[in-house]
Amino acid sequence: MSTSTESYTDVLIIGAGPSGLAVAYWMARCGINARVVDKRGTKIFKGHADGLRGRTTELFDSMGIAHRVLQEADYAAQLMFWRPDENGKLKRAGHLQFSNSSSSPYKMAMLTQGRIERFILDAIKSSSDLEVERGVVAESLSYDASSENHSQKYPVTITLRTLSEEEATPYSYPGASEIPAELDDQPDEIQKRKHPVGTIETVRAKYLIGCDGAHSWTRKQLNIPFEGASTDHIWGVVDMIPITDFPDIRRPTSLDAESGHLLIIPREGNVVRLYVPLQEDEVSATFDRSTVTLDTIRDRVKKILSPFSFDFKICHWWTVYQVGRRLAQTVSKGRVYLAGDAVHTHSPKVGLGMNMSFQDGFNLGWKVALAVRGVAFPSILDTYASERHQLAQMLVDFDRRWSAFFLQQEQQQKQQEQDPDASSAPQDNSAAMAEVFRESELFTEGYASFYGPNSLVQKGSTAMAKHLVAGERFLPAMIRNQAGGRPSLTTRLLDSDGRFRIVLLAGDMRLKDQQSRISALCDKLTELLMRFTPPKSKLDSIIEIKTIHSAPWMEVELSDFPSIVHQFDEEQGWDYSKVWSDSECSWEPRCVGNAYETWGVDKSRGAVVALRPDQYIGWMGELEDVAGLTQYFEGILQEARPRSVL
Amino acid sequence: MSTSTESYTDVLIIGAGPSGLAVAYWMARCGINARVVDKRGTKIFKGHADGLRGRTTELFDSMGIAHRVLQEADYAAQLMFWRPDENGKLKRAGHLQFSNSSSSPYKMAMLTQGRIERFILDAIKSSSDLEVERGVVAESLSYDASSENHSQKYPVTITLRTLSEEEATPYSYPGASEIPAELDDQPDEIQKRKHPVGTIETVRAKYLIGCDGAHSWTRKQLNIPFEGASTDHIWGVVDMIPITDFPDIRRPTSLDAESGHLLIIPREGNVVRLYVPLQEDEVSATFDRSTVTLDTIRDRVKKILSPFSFDFKICHWWTVYQVGRRLAQTVSKGRVYLAGDAVHTHSPKVGLGMNMSFQDGFNLGWKVALAVRGVAFPSILDTYASERHQLAQMLVDFDRRWSAFFLQQEQQQKQQEQDPDASSAPQDNSAAMAEVFRESELFTEGYASFYGPNSLVQKGSTAMAKHLVAGERFLPAMIRNQAGGRPSLTTRLLDSDGRFRIVLLAGDMRLKDQQSRISALCDKLTELLMRFTPPKSKLDSIIEIKTIHSAPWMEVELSDFPSIVHQFDEEQGWDYSKVWSDSECSWEPRCVGNAYETWGVDKSRGAVVALRPDQYIGWMGELEDVAGLTQYFEGILQEARPRSVL
Repeated sequence: MSTSTESYTDVLIIGAGPSGLAVAYWMARCGINARVVDKRGTKIFKGHADGLRGRTTELFDSMGIAHRVLQEADYAAQLMFWRPDENGKLKRAGHLQFSNSSSSPYKMAMLTQGRIERFILDAIKSSSDLEVERGVVAESLSYDASSENHSQKYPVTITLRTLSEEEATPYSYPGASEIPAELDDQPDEIQKRKHPVGTIETVRAKYLIGCDGAHSWTRKQLNIPFEGASTDHIWGVVDMIPITDFPDIRRPTSLDAESGHLLIIPREGNVVRLYVPLQEDEVSATFDRSTVTLDTIRDRVKKILSPFSFDFKICHWWTVYQVGRRLAQTVSKGRVYLAGDAVHTHSPKVGLGMNMSFQDGFNLGWKVALAVRGVAFPSILDTYASERHQLAQMLVDFDRRWSAFFLQQEQQQKQQEQDPDASSAPQDNSAAMAEVFRESELFTEGYASFYGPNSLVQKGSTAMAKHLVAGERFLPAMIRNQAGGRPSLTTRLLDSDGRFRIVLLAGDMRLKDQQSRISALCDKLTELLMRFTPPKSKLDSIIEIKTIHSAPWMEVELSDFPSIVHQFDEEQGWDYSKVWSDSECSWEPRCVGNAYETWGVDKSRGAVVALRPDQYIGWMGELEDVAGLTQYFEGILQEARPRSVL
Repeated sequence: MSTSTESYTDVLIIGAGPSGLAVAYWMARCGINARVVDKRGTKIFKGHADGLRGRTTELFDSMGIAHRVLQEADYAAQLMFWRPDENGKLKRAGHLQFSNSSSSPYKMAMLTQGRIERFILDAIKSSSDLEVERGVVAESLSYDASSENHSQKYPVTITLRTLSEEEATPYSYPGASEIPAELDDQPDEIQKRKHPVGTIETVRAKYLIGCDGAHSWTRKQLNIPFEGASTDHIWGVVDMIPITDFPDIRRPTSLDAESGHLLIIPREGNVVRLYVPLQEDEVSATFDRSTVTLDTIRDRVKKILSPFSFDFKICHWWTVYQVGRRLAQTVSKGRVYLAGDAVHTHSPKVGLGMNMSFQDGFNLGWKVALAVRGVAFPSILDTYASERHQLAQMLVDFDRRWSAFFLQQEQQQKQQEQDPDASSAPQDNSAAMAEVFRESELFTEGYASFYGPNSLVQKGSTAMAKHLVAGERFLPAMIRNQAGGRPSLTTRLLDSDGRFRIVLLAGDMRLKDQQSRISALCDKLTELLMRFTPPKSKLDSIIEIKTIHSAPWMEVELSDFPSIVHQFDEEQGWDYSKVWSDSECSWEPRCVGNAYETWGVDKSRGAVVALRPDQYIGWMGELEDVAGLTQYFEGILQEARPRSVL
């Protein structure tokens, strides 16, 4: 039955979870010859991760899918604390308001991973023919280091095997209901096999991206150590429809009862996720997870929530896990890269996993794409390790600190079992939790990223844009289109299409002086763009200029701006999507004309900000600092038309 | 080749444009055995209507598709006026700001009809198997009036023929580009034929809905006069990508140059629609439209916009039309109903057609569905004529007034041609236009509907809700979910699922008195709901109670409310989607806690509002007026469990 075949691809991605799909998205948008394989026979439809941080939704907006998240997810902006009062009765002990200081339009969204993957898959489909090949497993890897410096060579050789439906069906814990049809709007995809079952395909690839999870096969082939340990904490997690009179079942809640801890995460529709430590079982290195049943979890939650009633009849998904806190020693070898859980594992309670994984892939994908296309120097790929490995370390550290609160509770409980005279109420650590939470919020929400300095991030003066930081995100703001007046979030108009951007904060274009400054700058920008744009390509195909001025939008004209910033095309005419105004909009309450203020930019003088394709700030400067801007791009991009030719 | 077959359906819809799809949507949501046929082989992908009024988007929100409109459409909130100055040079003469007084979250959206139909088709698909049968034409109709009073009989007999691909392909004007692939995300649907080409199917139906356009075959079968006339105005309309230096090409603009009038409507992406009268041609009853080419329109626009440059290379769609202003004498005969252009035709410049047609179908569909299901008395169908026929008359009248402004221009021009010494500048009628616009805005936006009094709309006191009007829409507001705190527009949570709603404005539930009032009311509501709910059905399956109280959401508990308003279910637990709070939300600037104010309802005392399934207000009263509320429903709904049995 088994046949074999051979093929070539520029980029092979193993694993179609959040990190693999993020990489695949970039391949699709940048037109890269790529493949994605996943050993599961279908996408996931239920369970797994469900917390979407504000920054991830911002990135989704740049991919055109944030509106689907907003339509379906539940949101919250507070964490409720419950603990027993002096009489041992469970009471609200306060709540923690999530920060509003991030200037993000998005709050924590709670939606099942399967839907989020659907949105990314749809974004991939809308810009390419790239499809996830499901039911395909990688079986051998060889790497020819001698060819890795030749951009046209294929150092990676890998064999893939097409699995049978049985092999491609992962284990699922018994007791969960059938997938409700409405949980996804697309059928299973196992039918779409490229090859018959058993086919062995030898694939030669320029780059291999291992997004194959905590037990990463790719990582093991590379012999990259996965450092850390499994803790002795066993948790149950269940997605169900609660039947309860507990008042905060639809609010994110951290509850410390005398009989244990419970974390409640409300979700889309009427689903609620619960995390519960299963410490009444004998927890040890040899703990047999298969002894846990759905009823173990149900009974545990009943006991913790008592005297409130609790039960469920509909369970979408459940699992049992042992917290492993591990970090891969490196994230790459040669042209093989790891992303997502293959690099870092930690407790899911933090609600960061899917976000970190997605953002790993989002950081890596465009770099690979631009290197493959010969647009950028392959050396930019070195920044992946420095940018993401440090964050992975922070993630594992944060998880350790955060989980300690739950651990304290457990320890206190064990003490109490040994010494029944000890205080029966769990210690109130909500204040301490709040402090750690506050401290870490910018990190956990994904707003702080700590990138650079490196070839893609030049740290320097921030005098011209006091609230922006090179290596951080471009703070979202709502602005109005100059030509038509339509309001939009910056996250939407900074499309994730693989282009670098020069955000020209043009200041007040009603002023003659400012017009002269902009005119002088644009002459030089034209020259700069030409150097990096391949002949016969549009001048905005590698670096796009987006202009945001600070005058009221009805008081200036598009024609006040040099033509380079609203580029003319023989077929498409002037480009009306490029010039925007920091003006308020009477019919959009979120559009208040405070973008320059948000960025800390002088409304009359303006500034220039260079954004990477992932919308992180690479460089900032005054309108006159073309030399600095040029130097920034010279360190990243291959020259398409050397200066001497111009 | 030709075979024949016979079948039965409860509802047959002819035509899958905006009105037909609106009816089909209700059939899908209410689980009606229905069919939709359309003689075109595919859905439309380009051209036709493109203006979406605020009220239509509100209704789309109740169908779960507004977010897709918002993502893709262009919006505007002003109409620019251009005319020549004293030197004959085209200048901005001012602009008209569209009203903000409607308390609608939505503004005029401009998006091609094909996408809008896609969204409705997707909404239909997500709740049923109902599919449009394309390439099918109706050929004969007979009606047996003697059986129309028997709900289980099929008075309509109709024959349908399956067309060949050639027969099913409508004429399109030459010169337009191929459909850009990105214009829709689904393939053509002609393949999905139910029967082989040529098949004659005899269908017996309980109801027939003719949504088959201005030349309605259904209307002709019924011999319903289509009164009015074609005017002698010939217009060209073109969807293209402009190459121009005219500054307001991305702003809705009414331009009166010396050489003629032009209406500019910016659209999704970089498409712009232009309407231009073609009066240099000899316009008469025998005018041969086929003499007009795309270049006729191009040259006309060039001349009008001069000295600004104008041209295009990409044209998505164009057509030539003669304004017909006609109104069907009646909208129904027996169990055959007409909707949309089959009832009214007018100038498309008003940007109302798609909205009126959709709202016709939206008004009719649920009435038919509830009558078929035996939930409501068939007599409610009489309200369709009184509610929509009057509006159709208003539409035609408004079109006459509005178009007169353009007509004046033309007449003035003709005068000038005859008398070159007359003033050369077009008359400035922008002030007069603004006045008519203001006067008609509530109507044109669809906010005012002028329904009732009739069996579905009981006019009465508005003292308890000063800004709400029976027969009008429930003014949209943003409120917060009591259980979880998520903000939502009321338009979203009043799901268009076929249920009547009692909106219980519970007032300040922190007050003991108010709690008693609510408790007393709810006891009676339970009895009321039981009377109209079939045995074994959920108590909210015919009438749902949605509660919106006025206390800060963290200061009351769901358990403060009688169980009837957050109904318990053995499998689903308590329903957390039913109780809401008029509270501000710090992280959602559109949620300011002013809903009661918007409605003119006393924050401590509250009120009761009964909404029809289309979210129009049917009845309003004090919390004590259960008799009034009961009487309202008694006039509409079939009693499932007579009071005597309870």
